[in-house]
Amino acid sequence: MIQHEKYMKRCIELAKLAEGRVSPNPPVGAVVLDKDNNFVAEGFHRKYGEAHAEVNALNSAGEKARGGTLYISLEPCCHHGKTPPCVDKVIESGIKILILGMTDPNPEVAGKGIQKAREAGIEVIEDVLNKECRKLNEIFIKNIIQKKPFIAIKTASTMDGKIATSTQKSKWITSQAAREEVHRLRNKYDAIISGSATVIADNPGLTTRIENGRSPVRVIVDSKLITPANSRVYSDDGIKVIIATSKNAPGREKYPSHVEFLDCPLKNNKLNLEFLANELYKKRIFSIIAESGGKLNGAFLKQNLVDKIYFFLAPKLLGDHRAVSSFEGFAAESINQCINLRFDEVKSFSPDLMIEGYPDDR
Amino acid sequence: MIQHEKYMKRCIELAKLAEGRVSPNPPVGAVVLDKDNNFVAEGFHRKYGEAHAEVNALNSAGEKARGGTLYISLEPCCHHGKTPPCVDKVIESGIKILILGMTDPNPEVAGKGIQKAREAGIEVIEDVLNKECRKLNEIFIKNIIQKKPFIAIKTASTMDGKIATSTQKSKWITSQAAREEVHRLRNKYDAIISGSATVIADNPGLTTRIENGRSPVRVIVDSKLITPANSRVYSDDGIKVIIATSKNAPGREKYPSHVEFLDCPLKNNKLNLEFLANELYKKRIFSIIAESGGKLNGAFLKQNLVDKIYFFLAPKLLGDHRAVSSFEGFAAESINQCINLRFDEVKSFSPDLMIEGYPDDR
Repeated sequence: MIQHEKYMKRCIELAKLAEGRVSPNPPVGAVVLDKDNNFVAEGFHRKYGEAHAEVNALNSAGEKARGGTLYISLEPCCHHGKTPPCVDKVIESGIKILILGMTDPNPEVAGKGIQKAREAGIEVIEDVLNKECRKLNEIFIKNIIQKKPFIAIKTASTMDGKIATSTQKSKWITSQAAREEVHRLRNKYDAIISGSATVIADNPGLTTRIENGRSPVRVIVDSKLITPANSRVYSDDGIKVIIATSKNAPGREKYPSHVEFLDCPLKNNKLNLEFLANELYKKRIFSIIAESGGKLNGAFLKQNLVDKIYFFLAPKLLGDHRAVSSFEGFAAESINQCINLRFDEVKSFSPDLMIEGYPDDR
Repeated sequence: MIQHEKYMKRCIELAKLAEGRVSPNPPVGAVVLDKDNNFVAEGFHRKYGEAHAEVNALNSAGEKARGGTLYISLEPCCHHGKTPPCVDKVIESGIKILILGMTDPNPEVAGKGIQKAREAGIEVIEDVLNKECRKLNEIFIKNIIQKKPFIAIKTASTMDGKIATSTQKSKWITSQAAREEVHRLRNKYDAIISGSATVIADNPGLTTRIENGRSPVRVIVDSKLITPANSRVYSDDGIKVIIATSKNAPGREKYPSHVEFLDCPLKNNKLNLEFLANELYKKRIFSIIAESGGKLNGAFLKQNLVDKIYFFLAPKLLGDHRAVSSFEGFAAESINQCINLRFDEVKSFSPDLMIEGYPDDR
């Protein structure tokens, strides 16, 4: 089992190399051992439309796969998509043992790839590092089951929960190392969403500034079109930018011509974020990270749209109850009415910490 | 070295068994191996005035210590205190190797015990798990060098930094497991301090409710004597309670007769907490834990009196900027003016987390 976990861990590492490049497919990694349990080859799904992980790994392995073992972080597909069914390739390769991290989360196909492999005489071991593989595929799972984008919130706050001083100053609460991680997150998500207040206060570019990074589509929630047209986020840098606004908001003409508009209905005088998320999904945006202020963060939570929160915590105290809180506007009246989360990993981006939280019902 | 760390770790565990029972002495643990490196005996300093750790361990070991190794978390003393100098006992025991976690933090005696042992032909290895041993002795180090009490703050907040709703509701932000840890902390600190607002809002008992626990002295900061005389904290339960107040505050007669008063000067209309801390030190209170609201927490920080903060974080979001913040009243005007901390250990009290923080200059 220890060997199985070791190679499955490698599959996960490989899969992560292409996070943000394969949607709407899941990121997948695969490792091949020969009949004597020696490492032979590995592969991952590099890009949407190209070969799947197990096909890449088996192609590298060639005849050495015969009688060997194949590790894949996800059950091989058994249907024709952009590429032929992977399970056929697995069977052809002559591997003897197939070790999987998780079954296909799509309830309509789950288990069919496994069944086909078993019918061909392959021994299948399921659910190795299952929790880790499910986390790797959290975006894909949400997409395939709910046909909605996976929505994460990133906050960067002091230990007293503040994201800016009372005069909107926020540079820099978190460290260089933490901010670099934020760029790695942007590289992974299809879209980044922010609100008009953040654009006005911070004038951020919202691009991904790491080597070989790709910037997400930028979505600005601005129901009244109050953001200045010369904001950095609207500069014509080749990265798509969408303003989510209400139909009747005046002043579209002031923005540069490459800026797109997405009309959303209002709900209690606030933009309907669920409508927005669904529209973005239609535009093939499968994952969204919100980097915004307390009000938009609170609105996402209030509308029950949040799948994950990245809490970056700086070892600082601001000490001012008038300073800007990380979450506003749903106002639990008692502790029982708080939004409950479950903590997942705690990571260090020295000197800061980052805690991953998932809403309790997710 | 791995063996050295293993036994030093045991010394630290042993020392911790008597935390809160030995002040103003440091908590100390000791382990004895015989000449063939077999474990022979262990001991710790159990109670102020009783034998020191190494003496207990060497007494248990008897003749088996001869030619052996002694591990102690702290340099043995070389002066007559309540008990004879431990280093003499170490030399008499015939041990060959002495392995220490840290030197005596008192600059006037530091190294003298080591020197005496070396002069007697004992090989001394210093600073094994030094960081851990210094943390074990953080209260003692502050006391011996500054002649002031070590002051910690405990907060229990949601992930948006709130310790209560806008209507002062706070039951319960943190879990049973986290609250039990708070009782273990109370068991370790000599005094617990809270403010009038907390007494009025929560009416806490501020006692230690764990098996074999001892409750700290309770200190209530109430400069205007506005706390009700029938508050739980003033009940005659055999645990000392002190009200820190200003000289001219009227109404002392309403409190039960066992309640003591400590007059403190005001500073900008607030009680001078440094004066209070020094007065408590004179009363042999060597460590204080503040469990209070944002205002008193903020005042301790503003007066630069805080040595450590225990941040208990619940996986909850309150989402209300009017809710009570964990730290108030020093109001950094820019991020550069925040109080900087350094994070130490992160512990899990499921489902909560606890992060230890130290002010950057400590």
